[in-house]
Amino acid sequence: MIRIIQSSDKVSLQSLLNSRVSNQAEIAGRVAAIMDEVRQSGDNALCGFTRRFDKADLTPEQLRVSEEEIKWAYSQVDQEVLASLRVARKRIEDFHQKQLAKSWFHPEVDGTILGQLILPLDRVGIYVPGGTASYPSSVLMNAIPAKVAGVAQIVMVTPPGEDGRINPYSLVAAAEAGVTEIYKIGGAQAIAALAFGTETIRPVDKITGPGNIYVTLAKRMVYGQVGIDMLAGPSEVLVVADSSANPIYAAADMLSQAEHDSMASAILLTHDPVLAEAVAMEIERQVSKLPREKMAREALANYSAIIITGDVGESLDLANTFAPEHLEIMVDEPFNLLGRIKNAGAIFLGHHSPEPVGDYLAGPNHVLPTNGTARFYSPLNVDTFMKKSSVISFSQQNLQALGQDIIRLAEVEGLKAHANAVRVRLGLE
Amino acid sequence: MIRIIQSSDKVSLQSLLNSRVSNQAEIAGRVAAIMDEVRQSGDNALCGFTRRFDKADLTPEQLRVSEEEIKWAYSQVDQEVLASLRVARKRIEDFHQKQLAKSWFHPEVDGTILGQLILPLDRVGIYVPGGTASYPSSVLMNAIPAKVAGVAQIVMVTPPGEDGRINPYSLVAAAEAGVTEIYKIGGAQAIAALAFGTETIRPVDKITGPGNIYVTLAKRMVYGQVGIDMLAGPSEVLVVADSSANPIYAAADMLSQAEHDSMASAILLTHDPVLAEAVAMEIERQVSKLPREKMAREALANYSAIIITGDVGESLDLANTFAPEHLEIMVDEPFNLLGRIKNAGAIFLGHHSPEPVGDYLAGPNHVLPTNGTARFYSPLNVDTFMKKSSVISFSQQNLQALGQDIIRLAEVEGLKAHANAVRVRLGLE
Repeated sequence: MIRIIQSSDKVSLQSLLNSRVSNQAEIAGRVAAIMDEVRQSGDNALCGFTRRFDKADLTPEQLRVSEEEIKWAYSQVDQEVLASLRVARKRIEDFHQKQLAKSWFHPEVDGTILGQLILPLDRVGIYVPGGTASYPSSVLMNAIPAKVAGVAQIVMVTPPGEDGRINPYSLVAAAEAGVTEIYKIGGAQAIAALAFGTETIRPVDKITGPGNIYVTLAKRMVYGQVGIDMLAGPSEVLVVADSSANPIYAAADMLSQAEHDSMASAILLTHDPVLAEAVAMEIERQVSKLPREKMAREALANYSAIIITGDVGESLDLANTFAPEHLEIMVDEPFNLLGRIKNAGAIFLGHHSPEPVGDYLAGPNHVLPTNGTARFYSPLNVDTFMKKSSVISFSQQNLQALGQDIIRLAEVEGLKAHANAVRVRLGLE
Repeated sequence: MIRIIQSSDKVSLQSLLNSRVSNQAEIAGRVAAIMDEVRQSGDNALCGFTRRFDKADLTPEQLRVSEEEIKWAYSQVDQEVLASLRVARKRIEDFHQKQLAKSWFHPEVDGTILGQLILPLDRVGIYVPGGTASYPSSVLMNAIPAKVAGVAQIVMVTPPGEDGRINPYSLVAAAEAGVTEIYKIGGAQAIAALAFGTETIRPVDKITGPGNIYVTLAKRMVYGQVGIDMLAGPSEVLVVADSSANPIYAAADMLSQAEHDSMASAILLTHDPVLAEAVAMEIERQVSKLPREKMAREALANYSAIIITGDVGESLDLANTFAPEHLEIMVDEPFNLLGRIKNAGAIFLGHHSPEPVGDYLAGPNHVLPTNGTARFYSPLNVDTFMKKSSVISFSQQNLQALGQDIIRLAEVEGLKAHANAVRVRLGLE
């Protein structure tokens, strides 16, 4: 049963805020060992770990998905689902196109030109969870922004099932989204292969996409060697509601997070105690009908709560403190409150924007910062797959005008050779 | 003496590309111990480490720079240098203003609104190297983009000299740039204080700015708990030149990097063997006059080279492989080559754009990706201090139109509660 607490109960609040802190040292040691082995033994290590963790027996030549397998996948998928995937692809593409930033140049009257190049990364790796399950939406959400950015080589990794195959929906989604290479590998070994390369897999410039704790720790270890999008943890939703909210909707939305993971978190903030009770009852009624009831119940018991606040302002302040991955504002006039939201991955406004709309097809990305990191991380977006370079073309006239300033600043920093680079050009040295 | 190698000599090229790889495991252990102590003992640990590493004896109350100290700093600085700092501040501000991205909303005809909020971070920490030296330019380059982004609290940390003071130029630069708090701490202990907080220092959301290997490893360790800008190493310049280049300029620019650090790197790529010889001789002539000659000679001997290529195209391809922090294109018509540059932190075009112009006042940031990471990192910029949130406001009409697509995609992923969140709203459950 989900607990109901008062916002004045600071001890319970703090324990909810801190509930995700875990000791990862032991897992980190195992992840490091896996990655060392891939770095040293390449494809052989990959095949060994795939046999051990995924129970799939593949040769190095079978790691890469073939054209025939993609054709097979298209023959397997339901045509209505394929049509829905295409609806999603189109909406996701349209939204991410709006994020595309352009290079710019700014000339000054003396002939100086300053600018900023914004260029796509050359080769990126996207991680998609897999195994027996199928996450075509994760494929679209990772690959489409890379494609929109103009990335030439989009390399997808996803663990195979025991039969050595990738789920056909994931393969079709990859083909639809413009993925250029697919490898049947998962876990920390896949991250190592993308970062260091093996005989069959060339290293990438950046790795994106969420995974389990092994994947996340592996991404942390290669950060700096390659870029990564973010370090993501279990999924979360935080609903801010007033008495206009429908408790059936609020409960359904909270359960759509709780079913993800036994460490998922679903929180309701409301100043209406009647709504609080109604949502708690609705959750109880709905959860018992879910196939993933056990997982959802664990998430509800350990990482979830209904918190009764003094007013909607306090609810929003607390929401900013939680900085949730998904924030639903379930009130009649949600745009009036938008200016008070500081920290959230994605914000769902009104009564007709359940979080799964954003998971599948609204358009914005579903790869979002978790565990309070929306304070500083952004959703996966087109910028994730681009990088900037500054451009400086100084004119002789401008160098003469500003040369003494540069020399003075270089000398106050004790950097004589810096000053010299200007001096030789001004005929002073 | 700088070596001259042929681009066909793949062994020498590869050893140059790999020269920076070092074993940091031992230092990492020391950094972790420092950070644990700050996390456990707060201000006391900070004062202890500041006594030990910076030889400065400060009480917890003295860690924060006072208003009086800022006033004192203004009384100490040379007025001409202050004027030059203001010239730099103005140009840096102007450039970074052009980077400022705005939130946007896109309404659809059925009443759905999608959008992207772009909000400043709330509280950031900037690291500025210090001690006896003074780096006012680093203060400007870190603080100005944060200020332009709209960050409310800009916290600067920099190690004090043995007298317990911060260099007045750094303090004045901080005041000019809009820094809101300054603490006299440096090294890994400063990064720990910013990430975890102590009795006197509240934790920040993100930490930026380059430092030595201790600072860099500390930033890596707190990454994910807070945001960081990048992991930066020793400075680099790569000059691509044809026979129009002045060897005196090329040598001076290469030395302006070499004087930074005994691990700095200065590389010239040219297809003109005569220029190659002339630059080598000029470097030899100029280096002997530098106060930091010893450091520069180490950088030249170990991490630098002149590489003779077949043509300018090969020079640019190699430059893209190096992905240098600073790339100078020393030819008569540099803009003709701009489209061929893929990887570089900052690009300096033509004969009048020595790299120190960019260090101090051209406008673009001087905090740049090093060691090949320009493949995926960007210069420090206004975006570094902002984060995005997606906004999804679906209309009832649109949910009805797309509801079946969402349900189908949720079910193919085995997520029944996701489908339910739509079903309850369509009256199907």
